[in-house]
Amino acid sequence: MGTVVTLVGQVGAAKLADGLYRLRGKDLAAIVNTGDDYEHLGLAFSPDIDTVLYTLAGLASASAGWEPEGETRAVQSMLRSLGGADQPAVGDRSLAAPLLRTEALAGNRRLTEITRDFCRELGIGARVLPMCDERVRTNVVTDEGAITFTEYFNELGCEPPVRGFQYAGIEDARISDEVRDALLAPDLEAVIIGPANPHHAIRPILEVPNMREMLRKRGAPVIAVTPLVGGKALKGSAGKMMRELGKEPSVRAVAGEYLRLIDGFVIDREDEIFAESVRSLGIAVRPTATVMRTVDDRVALAQATLDFAAAIRATRVMEAE
Amino acid sequence: MGTVVTLVGQVGAAKLADGLYRLRGKDLAAIVNTGDDYEHLGLAFSPDIDTVLYTLAGLASASAGWEPEGETRAVQSMLRSLGGADQPAVGDRSLAAPLLRTEALAGNRRLTEITRDFCRELGIGARVLPMCDERVRTNVVTDEGAITFTEYFNELGCEPPVRGFQYAGIEDARISDEVRDALLAPDLEAVIIGPANPHHAIRPILEVPNMREMLRKRGAPVIAVTPLVGGKALKGSAGKMMRELGKEPSVRAVAGEYLRLIDGFVIDREDEIFAESVRSLGIAVRPTATVMRTVDDRVALAQATLDFAAAIRATRVMEAE
Repeated sequence: MGTVVTLVGQVGAAKLADGLYRLRGKDLAAIVNTGDDYEHLGLAFSPDIDTVLYTLAGLASASAGWEPEGETRAVQSMLRSLGGADQPAVGDRSLAAPLLRTEALAGNRRLTEITRDFCRELGIGARVLPMCDERVRTNVVTDEGAITFTEYFNELGCEPPVRGFQYAGIEDARISDEVRDALLAPDLEAVIIGPANPHHAIRPILEVPNMREMLRKRGAPVIAVTPLVGGKALKGSAGKMMRELGKEPSVRAVAGEYLRLIDGFVIDREDEIFAESVRSLGIAVRPTATVMRTVDDRVALAQATLDFAAAIRATRVMEAE
Repeated sequence: MGTVVTLVGQVGAAKLADGLYRLRGKDLAAIVNTGDDYEHLGLAFSPDIDTVLYTLAGLASASAGWEPEGETRAVQSMLRSLGGADQPAVGDRSLAAPLLRTEALAGNRRLTEITRDFCRELGIGARVLPMCDERVRTNVVTDEGAITFTEYFNELGCEPPVRGFQYAGIEDARISDEVRDALLAPDLEAVIIGPANPHHAIRPILEVPNMREMLRKRGAPVIAVTPLVGGKALKGSAGKMMRELGKEPSVRAVAGEYLRLIDGFVIDREDEIFAESVRSLGIAVRPTATVMRTVDDRVALAQATLDFAAAIRATRVMEAE
């Protein structure tokens, strides 16, 4: 068995990463979106990185996977008493990583190094790699202009219709040595794009200069897993955003976002009727159970996705012969 | 009735400030030690200021007056999981003020302004005034050299014998406009030095250039309240430090620390036998109950101290006539 790379943003993709981690351990590298990172209280919040850390360490809340289980709000309550802002809300346990991260960044350590140290302390054997060490911020373009994703999500409650996205700072982003090593591994077996909003969770990763080329460099199958089931996102705003962007919220439209990048697309059995329309884009399709309620669900979806990648590799070998 | 100024450091002096606040409300100004301020996790901790805020706002823990009642340790527990330092320990509620303070200081606000805003939010009518806005750090001189008070207290558990103190940065400290206004108030009735370690809680305040002169400027009686009862500090390290500095841990020795500054000294009834030896220093003495277990105790000691100041003023008037 070789190594596996997965692209991660949001809770669903973190759960799939956990399934892959349980199957492959240290042979997994997760490249994580940092476009939704933000500053609050002078601290560097990296919500998608922390979601992956909590999930792989087995600390994530079952009902609110972006924060640790048993999260409390004592700091926030006192912040309010002292006149601090209500939003974004901070949880007590969730403050620890931003506190240590901010201190380490001030000491000129790279986000990748800081995240590696967190993994070591938490006993996570997989590599959790920020998409880059430079500061990139996903801005949501609305009718009123561009706003940060934090404003859109926390202050405006995802209300304003989305007209597009900007990935501020992306032109100065560089693929880190650690991401390069993961993508150029001689035994790279598959690249798996996790089930997440393609626009603001996955796209920032793909927009890092040379990332798309690098993802395809070793020729390992690139597989995406749908974030939509029956035309709706299980969690999050993918469906709403797609409609506002003038696209039908369908598995075909999601697959279309990854055109010329992915070889295969994993859809839910519920959407099997759309399989042909995705195949017409030149993309292989594998319907399976994609809803991850339990840890077993995560492992099953991870295994199905890896099996699909293996099948695509086998087809290529047959075609080459 | 006029205005009252009290000098504060540590829990005991904060409790007396609370007694004075309950008697005098907005006519109280507390000048607070910042020599024990420290940085941890990149945050600006001001333990003595926060102790006063929690105490005057009625939020302080009954058993651990330097932190809010019902304090929890969720952040610290996660910090440890992520490889953060064990010491100094941080409480969840106790993190809120340092977080907001650090952010405001980074925005170039003065510590005095930041503290005033906290008072307003907490509904504290008294003025809580840092001794200065500049950075001053009390260092403990040991046989191994000078160390910060934080190291001495948190890392070394007050173990090393104390040979002296340094107040680093004190030469650049300035009396703020707010402290000046409090000390030059035409109706200033008394200056009360709270029951606290004279060396590291009160002395840094007195070492701010011109502070001693300013304290005596309006001629209001200056009264100190003993931190020792029966030769021992109720809490804290005053007794131990005095022995290590080659002084007997007695009310006379504490009074001696304030020679040529105080007019009167409040001692505990238990130490009444030492009254004459203090009087021989030219300092008036008032024995009373100084142990503050309840809020009523705080108010009673505050009242006794104000009565003592009034008696000293009356004596002066008689002597002048």
